[in-house]
Amino acid sequence: MRQSRTSNRTIALGLLLGVVFIYFIYSISSTSITSSDLRQRLSDAAADNPLSPPTSAFRKQADSLNSHGGVHRPPPVVHYQLNNLTASPNPAAKNEKVLILTPLARFYPEYWANLLALNYPHEHISLGFITPKTKEGNEATTALQEAIKITQSGPEEDRFQSITILRQDIESPLISQEEKERHKMENQRVRRAAMSRARNSLLFTTIGPSTSWVLWLDSDIVETPPTLIQDLASHDKSIIVPNCYQRYLKDDGTPDVRPYDYNSWRDSDTAQQLAAQMGPDDILLEGYAEMPTYRTLMAMLANTGPNGDPRRLMPLDGVGGTALLVKAEVHRDGAMFPAFPFYHLIETEGFAKMARRLGFESWGLPDYLVYHYNE
Amino acid sequence: MRQSRTSNRTIALGLLLGVVFIYFIYSISSTSITSSDLRQRLSDAAADNPLSPPTSAFRKQADSLNSHGGVHRPPPVVHYQLNNLTASPNPAAKNEKVLILTPLARFYPEYWANLLALNYPHEHISLGFITPKTKEGNEATTALQEAIKITQSGPEEDRFQSITILRQDIESPLISQEEKERHKMENQRVRRAAMSRARNSLLFTTIGPSTSWVLWLDSDIVETPPTLIQDLASHDKSIIVPNCYQRYLKDDGTPDVRPYDYNSWRDSDTAQQLAAQMGPDDILLEGYAEMPTYRTLMAMLANTGPNGDPRRLMPLDGVGGTALLVKAEVHRDGAMFPAFPFYHLIETEGFAKMARRLGFESWGLPDYLVYHYNE
Repeated sequence: MRQSRTSNRTIALGLLLGVVFIYFIYSISSTSITSSDLRQRLSDAAADNPLSPPTSAFRKQADSLNSHGGVHRPPPVVHYQLNNLTASPNPAAKNEKVLILTPLARFYPEYWANLLALNYPHEHISLGFITPKTKEGNEATTALQEAIKITQSGPEEDRFQSITILRQDIESPLISQEEKERHKMENQRVRRAAMSRARNSLLFTTIGPSTSWVLWLDSDIVETPPTLIQDLASHDKSIIVPNCYQRYLKDDGTPDVRPYDYNSWRDSDTAQQLAAQMGPDDILLEGYAEMPTYRTLMAMLANTGPNGDPRRLMPLDGVGGTALLVKAEVHRDGAMFPAFPFYHLIETEGFAKMARRLGFESWGLPDYLVYHYNE
Repeated sequence: MRQSRTSNRTIALGLLLGVVFIYFIYSISSTSITSSDLRQRLSDAAADNPLSPPTSAFRKQADSLNSHGGVHRPPPVVHYQLNNLTASPNPAAKNEKVLILTPLARFYPEYWANLLALNYPHEHISLGFITPKTKEGNEATTALQEAIKITQSGPEEDRFQSITILRQDIESPLISQEEKERHKMENQRVRRAAMSRARNSLLFTTIGPSTSWVLWLDSDIVETPPTLIQDLASHDKSIIVPNCYQRYLKDDGTPDVRPYDYNSWRDSDTAQQLAAQMGPDDILLEGYAEMPTYRTLMAMLANTGPNGDPRRLMPLDGVGGTALLVKAEVHRDGAMFPAFPFYHLIETEGFAKMARRLGFESWGLPDYLVYHYNE
């Protein structure tokens, strides 16, 4: 057993080398809002108990409550009344906590700038990152920490509630993350199995009892509407995914957009028949000419013109993870990212299938675009 | 979608009503050990950061570090160096954190007494409970909280590092938990699907970055060796399960033991053939005369006499969850308790299969007995 695990080291990402928790306490001196407003916000945003999970900020208790004649008393039992734990179409109105999770291979300043521009109240957003233990991962972690330091000591309204960074301690299966190398079909299975384990480690470690929503946001998503969270949540779907596109320059130098993520789709009879003929460990992959599935790809259905309707919905059977909003109950019930073929699907596509088996449907917004970095 | 979820309310346990976090700080006045020993233990056991997950206790920082001219400064970035995160054959020597998780339908004083008697250092044990939102569940929660209050304010060495209680907010599918009703074959599927969601909610909410081991321990396990954790961990297996028996009185009044949990087994050709002929949503259940599987049941292999070898190992394909030790990396990689048929298996048996798909093997100790309450 140990031997087989050892030979699988390259895809075994479960053990984490380093974890960094970063948090902030509202700095009373660095704000212009009134102190009574501030006390209210602090009271809403922060938990009373130091053992708060990462999704709930710590509020230091007055010393008089903790000490008694110089001796520390055990604190009382603390109840979190979570009958208010909702995941509603208007989450900001209910102060619902959003956990944004990002597997970070490279740090793009544009990603961070876009994250900062999200106008869902940052005091209700926690961030979680997992970075690979490679030279690239080290550089990404360093750059991320620099960005965090600036943000979390900057204007109060920019600061996030809490931030967690996990480091993988085992090398990624593919050293190169170059675009061509990454998309080779034979590399996809290994890469996406490793990505599944990374996503699961991040998810299991950071989701807390007060998390209402989980937004998966890849580190190469560099442009979204600032209302991304509110817009996606407003549809009140358990799982919802926007359409991931890419900006580029045409040969004549004019700017245009093109589809990027092909993992959001409705199933087809052809794909079902392909799956039925496969061995138990084979997987179906989307977007490869050598394996035509004839699935309905959301990427191909965007109306990018003036008549596009960003609120148009379509049901999906597979979802991509570049940007993906999930009600926390879906994960809590057990939906994760299978690193093994699950109905011949892995990673985010397997997640959609697993969620379906748990009774949750997936939806897509074909005309609501988010943009991937152009490598 | 909402309608279908609503009709599935009875098995949808994802939303949690109440969460209780309980923790303790070493009380300097209530111990007879020297204060330098105490500082060392405190330094080993507690985290520097208030945002510690439930598996790591909070240590209050000196006020001088937090305040500066009366203004709270944002605390610095805190690194958790988890290159020491191991799950080793001698976990106590490495201060490895153990998370004991218990779905609690009823509170048995014998369960709590046995838990208290575990001699793995309690300062490295965190407890997590999930209780159903029923009259029985309310009573169990009340009794549990009473027991916790006594333990966590009692002798220092008895106290656990932290305790989390989750309340389900939706009724259990089966009101009655009577023994006969619970074991009816047609009730098993619904009951175990609900139990899967409860286990997953508990697991996702409580596992933290410093957890090395997860011990699943059912609330009706009333007798184990006090060295249970050390004994199971010493085999250095990813997943290991003792044999769950029950004490009873024979007709002539003499005490004896008999097998109780039939969910730990090695697969058989018969069971494989049964599965191959099943519909995709059918499940195989163990221990029912109307569905003979001819699997090798660990329950039937115990040598309970003087020649029994508590260290004898056997490989398993399915595991029971009455007592079950799992390396945390298995869960972090994504192994959870499927509430849906997974290779025609659900709950703990499905977990073993899912772990196998992730590359982790399960092992049993046929001659190492733990005892279930005799209802």
